[in-house]
Amino acid sequence: MEYTEKFGKYIDVNIGEHIENLRELVRQPSIGVSGFGTQKTAEIIKDWMIQVQFDKVDFYNSDGNPIVFGEILAKDSQSAKTLLIYGAYDSNPVEEDHWEYPPFEGVIIENEKLGTCMVGRGVNNKMKVAGILNAIKTVKEVMGELPVNLLVVFDGEEEIFSPNQAQFIQDNTEWLLRADALYMPFSSQNAQGVARVQLGYKGILYLELKVTGHRWTRGPKDNEIHSMHRPVVDNPAWHLIMALNSMVGEHGNQVLIDGFQDDIAEPSNEFKEMMKTLAGKFDVQGYKAGLGVDNLYSETEEPLDVLRNLFTTAQINIDGIWSGYTGAGPEAVIPHDAIAKIEVRLIPNQTAKQVQDTIETHLQTHGFSYIEVTNLAAVEFCQTSIKEDIAKALIAAYEANKIDHQIWPISIATIPISLYNQSPLNLPFATGCVGNGGNTHGSNEYAVVIGKGAISGLDGYEKLIASVIFEYGK
Amino acid sequence: MEYTEKFGKYIDVNIGEHIENLRELVRQPSIGVSGFGTQKTAEIIKDWMIQVQFDKVDFYNSDGNPIVFGEILAKDSQSAKTLLIYGAYDSNPVEEDHWEYPPFEGVIIENEKLGTCMVGRGVNNKMKVAGILNAIKTVKEVMGELPVNLLVVFDGEEEIFSPNQAQFIQDNTEWLLRADALYMPFSSQNAQGVARVQLGYKGILYLELKVTGHRWTRGPKDNEIHSMHRPVVDNPAWHLIMALNSMVGEHGNQVLIDGFQDDIAEPSNEFKEMMKTLAGKFDVQGYKAGLGVDNLYSETEEPLDVLRNLFTTAQINIDGIWSGYTGAGPEAVIPHDAIAKIEVRLIPNQTAKQVQDTIETHLQTHGFSYIEVTNLAAVEFCQTSIKEDIAKALIAAYEANKIDHQIWPISIATIPISLYNQSPLNLPFATGCVGNGGNTHGSNEYAVVIGKGAISGLDGYEKLIASVIFEYGK
Repeated sequence: MEYTEKFGKYIDVNIGEHIENLRELVRQPSIGVSGFGTQKTAEIIKDWMIQVQFDKVDFYNSDGNPIVFGEILAKDSQSAKTLLIYGAYDSNPVEEDHWEYPPFEGVIIENEKLGTCMVGRGVNNKMKVAGILNAIKTVKEVMGELPVNLLVVFDGEEEIFSPNQAQFIQDNTEWLLRADALYMPFSSQNAQGVARVQLGYKGILYLELKVTGHRWTRGPKDNEIHSMHRPVVDNPAWHLIMALNSMVGEHGNQVLIDGFQDDIAEPSNEFKEMMKTLAGKFDVQGYKAGLGVDNLYSETEEPLDVLRNLFTTAQINIDGIWSGYTGAGPEAVIPHDAIAKIEVRLIPNQTAKQVQDTIETHLQTHGFSYIEVTNLAAVEFCQTSIKEDIAKALIAAYEANKIDHQIWPISIATIPISLYNQSPLNLPFATGCVGNGGNTHGSNEYAVVIGKGAISGLDGYEKLIASVIFEYGK
Repeated sequence: MEYTEKFGKYIDVNIGEHIENLRELVRQPSIGVSGFGTQKTAEIIKDWMIQVQFDKVDFYNSDGNPIVFGEILAKDSQSAKTLLIYGAYDSNPVEEDHWEYPPFEGVIIENEKLGTCMVGRGVNNKMKVAGILNAIKTVKEVMGELPVNLLVVFDGEEEIFSPNQAQFIQDNTEWLLRADALYMPFSSQNAQGVARVQLGYKGILYLELKVTGHRWTRGPKDNEIHSMHRPVVDNPAWHLIMALNSMVGEHGNQVLIDGFQDDIAEPSNEFKEMMKTLAGKFDVQGYKAGLGVDNLYSETEEPLDVLRNLFTTAQINIDGIWSGYTGAGPEAVIPHDAIAKIEVRLIPNQTAKQVQDTIETHLQTHGFSYIEVTNLAAVEFCQTSIKEDIAKALIAAYEANKIDHQIWPISIATIPISLYNQSPLNLPFATGCVGNGGNTHGSNEYAVVIGKGAISGLDGYEKLIASVIFEYGK
């Protein structure tokens, strides 16, 4: 019997219990930005790891939400390779959303195309916790022992760009240096069931720009004032608008900041080859429809053009801007401050510091030195090679389970794997798994728990992680 | 005995009761924008007018808040002149403010410089109601009869630019055509006790500019989407910023819209003369300190330069702008809409329609035709001559009461007197009175009720209005 068949049989017997375990986690809120419920969630995960007979389980209590981490060893732990499996248990808030189902009940609904789904805030991250722990138990039970040593880290701040992860790594460097590679599962299947191997992530630089009368020495200082004085009183909203406008060309899609592009690296041939292969299967119309966008900004809507823009260009996004009166009807004021949140998704080899430097220099040299710049988040990009053992293991796991898959040289998302990929750990990595889910930033977040057609549920998700552990241990 | 002395004696006897009457009005909220309490306030005013033995009292019930209006006739009403006295009883809301005193109790406090003040939302407009009705009663009691016919109009929507006033005038044209002039009292004394004669008001054009993915056909249509898609998805906030930026030069203080300045009239010699006289007494440092502004936008800080900018230039103000995520920390979104509220204070001879046309044409010819433009308020400028009887009557009233005063050729504020000044009514007008008050758009709104030194209280306010009626009837 193939190993995948053995894993499948074991999981099939227990899947009802596994779905209930996932539901228990979804019922417990764990909001990254506010920290609400994260301590209790971390305790549930710790107890679960003890049940799976981890050799070590611990909390890292930073200024933020706890990181749960631990290790479980192979029989011959000295000679075995060591794999770090990484996940997160936190979620976005629910306050601003319009939910059709209660966000913390783990309601089960039927989706005609995808199969049986669980709806609940955080279900996609919580799939990682459930999938990883059940997969480890499966490998142990079916094979009698683990083929590799496993280090497991569950972050509690992934949705806010993991501000305490660097300190965790610094405080646990010796332990983490035992790892040979990092693997992170996530529900990567698209509507056609095609899964992903992701070998890179963009970084992010997220800044707040603020104009106040105090620092500018023009316009109102402490309070809004009546707009009838406008002919002799400056308005900070105009100052901010002119500063932002000076940074970009047509429709805001060309960055005109000196040095902004200087560090962008020409993609390697390996990268270009992967991008070209991916373009052959990339459904631009489906992508647009999924986003709810009529037109894309790219030279053409050829898949390769769209992917080239997505993977190899850096834009400045305005995530938010506000100043003055924002209620209904006319209210006549000159605002005393104006604020914008902007972000850049960093591509190889841009660094957060270099990009922030070019933006600050631009403001200073263009007459906007009075604009206050606050760094709200900084995560670096990361990239690994398809030739690494962990990439090979993930691909082999897909093949052993007959899962159609694509290689993504870089993801358009940002997660702090760069901290593990850079010195001193220098871990190669791969991310991906079967499964399908979404709405992690919106209402009615869902994940497939019992798949349909080419889409896998929690059972397939667990089987694939178990397969990666098996393949990496070969 | 001088007539002013007679008026003064009568008012002195009754001032305690008059202050209590004012307090009753302040205790009754009358919020212009929401309409809260306006019906009840209008009824209190109507009953008061009946007590003063008005010959006619009526409500105008538009879609908005009621206008209370009525008439009280001279003995020889056929041959007497007719004066329209105009006031308002509504106020700004209180929700956003930080009050040290309850806003609807009419708390009495002592101010070392100004005298005894009443604190309460709306007390400055309610001074007009109390002052006008008590002054009419005073003239009647002291002189035995009125020297002029009086039409009285109390608006309930002045703080929201009187959107129903034009319809009121249209529906009551015949009645209003009986008036020969319009007078509006307001607490115009500065800290040194200098009062004003105001012979003009600026207009206003208040617009909302909105970019949505739907109309633009670019960017997200219905909801915010994840910012990781930014390299191929346009952002409406940039589109709005670029549109706004295209309208203005340095720091937003030069309007670059074709035709925007075309209708601006060269001030008359009478206007220039008044501005020059005014500049002789204009305290620029005090003005700046009052606003809480370190630097003004004007060539120099010479009083005449500052006044010239204030009176004869038109700027575009941004009253508010908002788009996307405006909470704490980093949230990664591409907004689906971006909105700005902008206003222009119209000077002679700009009209709201002409200015709106130039802005809309500018947007269309500069690639921003997809920006939706909504008119939130439009009021025209108005100007009258110092040679009119009503201007002379106000000046004579100041002189008879020995009140130091200035002539303002135009106010920087906007009130809808233009509707009475233009066809078909064509009423000349003057505005002003003694008294001092403020914070009508902020917390702790106050008005002096018992004056100190050169500052008058409610008694002086009533006496001055009575004097205007007397002088106009000469």
